[in-house]
Amino acid sequence: MTTSQMIVLASRPHGAPTSDNFRLETRELPALSDGELLVRNTVMSVDPYMRGRMNDVKSYVPPFQIDEPLDGGAVGEVVESRAEGFAEGDLVLHGLGWRDMAVVPAKAARKVSTNVGGAQVSPSAYLGALGMPGITAYGGLMRVGEFHSGDAVFVSGAAGAVGSLVGQIAKLEGASRVIGSAGSAQKIARLEELGFDAAFNYKDGDVRGLLKNAAPDGIDVYFDNVGGDHLEAAISSMNTHGRIAMCGAIAQYNSTEPPAAPRNLALVIGKRITIRGFIQSDFRDLVPEFQQKMATWLADGSVQWDETVVEGLENAPQAFMDLLNGANTGKMVVSI
Amino acid sequence: MTTSQMIVLASRPHGAPTSDNFRLETRELPALSDGELLVRNTVMSVDPYMRGRMNDVKSYVPPFQIDEPLDGGAVGEVVESRAEGFAEGDLVLHGLGWRDMAVVPAKAARKVSTNVGGAQVSPSAYLGALGMPGITAYGGLMRVGEFHSGDAVFVSGAAGAVGSLVGQIAKLEGASRVIGSAGSAQKIARLEELGFDAAFNYKDGDVRGLLKNAAPDGIDVYFDNVGGDHLEAAISSMNTHGRIAMCGAIAQYNSTEPPAAPRNLALVIGKRITIRGFIQSDFRDLVPEFQQKMATWLADGSVQWDETVVEGLENAPQAFMDLLNGANTGKMVVSI
Repeated sequence: MTTSQMIVLASRPHGAPTSDNFRLETRELPALSDGELLVRNTVMSVDPYMRGRMNDVKSYVPPFQIDEPLDGGAVGEVVESRAEGFAEGDLVLHGLGWRDMAVVPAKAARKVSTNVGGAQVSPSAYLGALGMPGITAYGGLMRVGEFHSGDAVFVSGAAGAVGSLVGQIAKLEGASRVIGSAGSAQKIARLEELGFDAAFNYKDGDVRGLLKNAAPDGIDVYFDNVGGDHLEAAISSMNTHGRIAMCGAIAQYNSTEPPAAPRNLALVIGKRITIRGFIQSDFRDLVPEFQQKMATWLADGSVQWDETVVEGLENAPQAFMDLLNGANTGKMVVSI
Repeated sequence: MTTSQMIVLASRPHGAPTSDNFRLETRELPALSDGELLVRNTVMSVDPYMRGRMNDVKSYVPPFQIDEPLDGGAVGEVVESRAEGFAEGDLVLHGLGWRDMAVVPAKAARKVSTNVGGAQVSPSAYLGALGMPGITAYGGLMRVGEFHSGDAVFVSGAAGAVGSLVGQIAKLEGASRVIGSAGSAQKIARLEELGFDAAFNYKDGDVRGLLKNAAPDGIDVYFDNVGGDHLEAAISSMNTHGRIAMCGAIAQYNSTEPPAAPRNLALVIGKRITIRGFIQSDFRDLVPEFQQKMATWLADGSVQWDETVVEGLENAPQAFMDLLNGANTGKMVVSI
């Protein structure tokens, strides 16, 4: 009998999650059926979107259930296979994180390699640059933001998993100027190392003024991870025919009150701004093009990839809470 | 020496305009130069966008200047021509309204006819269904709203010049359901006569609830003339991949405070909503297609066209103030 340690949702957070909302449990796993894999997870993802799934509301992914394990992206090693094409020792990417052992339907698993185009990548790259944050950044910038070479790009949450890729991809694709915002001096320093033309700490003052200073000639694309005052500032600095790709609104995920909305939204009319929301699963058709480019960029060092690694499944809830507070630089993952 | 009576901007309105902001003056006109026409205006337009031009702010059209005449769409008769292709008695559409006599550069004038495809139209139709409100409605719905047959469409300010055309065009182009909002029982009754499937008076309660009742299966396109709580309600009722064409925000044109913005803007992400602003001059390439369709619709009675006509240039400021308060059904024009 195989057992699995897993993090279950003990109660729904009201506002910011606390450790009381989570519980570590050991459960027995059923025997494998045909078409299933037993996987020992080695690394799992914590992502901002998971906060939304902790509320009992209809959204583009169903809510987590009380007393049931959380789930999310994970990479692990196949321990036992009852599916064709998978063997013991294979490295697989799948959706049953937040636990150490998982019974995974083979059709929901993808074999991955730590050798990409001759370069070595860590398994966790598949939770980041080569995975969901990567395609989110690429598709959000190129398709939703309708990025063209020569555009000036602003990205909020720029030191995060998605934001740091948006800025680097924009530079590689020919942006005239890339501006990022983040919440600490250390993160700002890192953005400068990553090649951002300008970066500001949004805690230093009025975001609208900080952005105007950083982008005196305005911006053409805003990749929004934050919402609230960042969105308002971006509308204010946006050039005619500018595009806003709405990816996330981390500023309000823990809000219990309706958030402050952009008071200057009517500027969208005269400036002919497009604001468009998206989720990464909209970009399935872009994945091959994206993976080829990103593998090349990682292999030749054009894209740098930061991780904040927390050790131990039992610390996953704290890692998630820290993520929502911006404690990470780059992708936050939990090593199991 | 020819003189012209004209309405000049006496002072900039703070909030809602008052009669003190306007002054009727008589001025001498210069003699005609080559390429110019002397035009006796018979009808002029008052439009919501003119309120923005009364503020001293940069926008997509320059602001009106203090002590200078206002301008805007007008139709008149050529009294004297020093331009090839124009003769005394020609009916012309041009941009120098708010006055009885105007010296108009011929290249800024367009000859128009009251016979359209065999049907008689009034000269003022060129300020309405066949003119700027018409192309605004058509381009905003079809191009910006990416309307497809079968879509459910909601339009606010639906009894106004643009809104009443949006609803009728949507029905003619195959909308599954057309919902309109307006501000009086009389206007709602008129919307029902015009073929709207549902209409509500936004003064009857919470716009979000009123819209949910009127559109139980949601909406695919929202044509926004109002902003504020209407925009929030539309986001709430919007189906996945819905489009919002932002045309105007009359609810806030007279505001001195930043307007209430949609508190549910983050729903744009999961629903993959597109919000896009536009102005009618974006649609120059659509004008021939639009004029052909609209002439046919007017000639065969498929589109009905309402006007509220105010008599006398001296009453134009009051007509404009009444327009901002929603006193009109259909296009508000001033007969000179």
